[in-house]
Amino acid sequence: MKIRIGIVGYGNLGRGVECAVRETSDMELAAVFTRRDPSSLKLKTENVPVVSVNDILEWKDKIDVLVLCGGSATDLPEQTPAYAKHFNVIDSFDTHARIPEHFAAVNAAAKENGHTAMISVGWDPGLFSLIRAYSSAVLPNGKDYTFWGKGVSQGHSDAIRRIEGVANAKQYTIPVDAALEAVRSGKNPELTTRQKHIRECFVVLKEGADPDKVEKEIVEMPNYFADYDTTVHFISKEEFAANHSGLAHGGFVFRSGATGLDHEHKHVIEFSLKLDSNPEFTSSVIIAYARAVKRLNDKGDTGCKTVFDIPPVLLSELSPEEMRSHLL
Amino acid sequence: MKIRIGIVGYGNLGRGVECAVRETSDMELAAVFTRRDPSSLKLKTENVPVVSVNDILEWKDKIDVLVLCGGSATDLPEQTPAYAKHFNVIDSFDTHARIPEHFAAVNAAAKENGHTAMISVGWDPGLFSLIRAYSSAVLPNGKDYTFWGKGVSQGHSDAIRRIEGVANAKQYTIPVDAALEAVRSGKNPELTTRQKHIRECFVVLKEGADPDKVEKEIVEMPNYFADYDTTVHFISKEEFAANHSGLAHGGFVFRSGATGLDHEHKHVIEFSLKLDSNPEFTSSVIIAYARAVKRLNDKGDTGCKTVFDIPPVLLSELSPEEMRSHLL
Repeated sequence: MKIRIGIVGYGNLGRGVECAVRETSDMELAAVFTRRDPSSLKLKTENVPVVSVNDILEWKDKIDVLVLCGGSATDLPEQTPAYAKHFNVIDSFDTHARIPEHFAAVNAAAKENGHTAMISVGWDPGLFSLIRAYSSAVLPNGKDYTFWGKGVSQGHSDAIRRIEGVANAKQYTIPVDAALEAVRSGKNPELTTRQKHIRECFVVLKEGADPDKVEKEIVEMPNYFADYDTTVHFISKEEFAANHSGLAHGGFVFRSGATGLDHEHKHVIEFSLKLDSNPEFTSSVIIAYARAVKRLNDKGDTGCKTVFDIPPVLLSELSPEEMRSHLL
Repeated sequence: MKIRIGIVGYGNLGRGVECAVRETSDMELAAVFTRRDPSSLKLKTENVPVVSVNDILEWKDKIDVLVLCGGSATDLPEQTPAYAKHFNVIDSFDTHARIPEHFAAVNAAAKENGHTAMISVGWDPGLFSLIRAYSSAVLPNGKDYTFWGKGVSQGHSDAIRRIEGVANAKQYTIPVDAALEAVRSGKNPELTTRQKHIRECFVVLKEGADPDKVEKEIVEMPNYFADYDTTVHFISKEEFAANHSGLAHGGFVFRSGATGLDHEHKHVIEFSLKLDSNPEFTSSVIIAYARAVKRLNDKGDTGCKTVFDIPPVLLSELSPEEMRSHLL
């Protein structure tokens, strides 16, 4: 019997999960749950019911793993603990500072009800976290570096859009080549915020807005832009639609360390992602871990997990024997 | 109480394990076991006994994890199952084709005697295997590429040294830049053996040997060199000693795949290592996994494991809470 996946929230991430399920041979999409009018959603997969989120508890016994595709700011802190009472769940909660409290709430709800939950699954947090964990365990005498981009920062784009006179905006985070090269060479540089990333903004102005005023407001914005070298381009609505609607992203994780009696031998571990679609890749990671959630729950291993708790063997459609023969 | 590590075999790998233990705060080197005269060994660590391998069973209750530092050709197939009867063990067995039979032998010996064993730990097999496993689970619609080098191939160097007229030789495996770039760009090329790696040989001739004859014998050697573009440099004994005694190595693992309803979005995952010392890095990986072996055995989880079976949380000196706060 296939693993029955439910999706809560049919935005970019939810649609990515739908695509990722189609790439597996051991899973099926059982239902999509939405806060919108279910008749307004058109899925890519035929014969999958779209259900009002109000009726989700009727699906308790028809879903093996519920994938929560809401946002980290307000949706997931509420949804993940709530649904973990009734389902095995997985989310991509990415507010790093609030992970401990989110973990505690989800763990309590899942444990009490015999469910298995996973939080913070994707690429950062997610695959990048794995690389940081493996490489710091292997090279305890060393230093970590994480760079993001080139890619769109949703939070920074939103911040620009809230400025008076701005009709639309997109902000790209771009790692600085010289910083990447210094890390890659094993020099273990100390890098300031400004030295690691630059921020490039594409802005569509409302009629009559003053570009100088808007630019000044962007580049001086505390926390978001003041600590970075920021460039601002004013473009037309048409150019924005043509060139800035993609969802590409990526990044780099390095560990640079030394071994030997006098730390005389240097080693550099580098992991990087180049992604055409951030939400589709994130949901591909989630679906691999949804398989692990089901397998753990089958073994009676309940409560909240993160990527650190999952042995790779639980992620694959291959048997342990096939993995040893073909991947080891 | 610290995890007590024993080393069997004090060559490059054994000395690397000794250094790696010194970087931890939760392990100590309890003893080094050798087939040589124990008094002939001078360790880097003070007050650690060097013991004849014939007396190893007297140490059954004084070692938590025994690290087997022999070779894959003849030592480990015999040693790992034999010692798994009496100790928790870990090795770096790297004959890919024989992993299933080695696993079976070690698993039986360890299980029967309540011990925990790990085989094939290092970087390939090891970290590279992990990346292949994670990335193929995440991008099932995709293609793997593994490149090795620039680094010394011991087997190929040995093969050259067996040629008549050769006094000494070192062979470097070098990935072809154009192949790396083609893979990195997401083109999913089909690459022949010749297109992926070149082989560069540095050879010291015996007096009176014919360089043309030796070169021909190298480049035409079946399996080892015939399928590659091979260059041969004849150098003096002095140059060999000065420039070719290092143990640097490294390599690349890629997964290039696509997601989306029509596979319209491409993604490239890249992992690479640049290592000044192959044996010291390998032993750093082994020591991180030795921690996991001890923890698994403490929980009663016995038998043979590979890197696929181990959740990352078992590798770190950090607590699960610290890992979630600092690495996730």
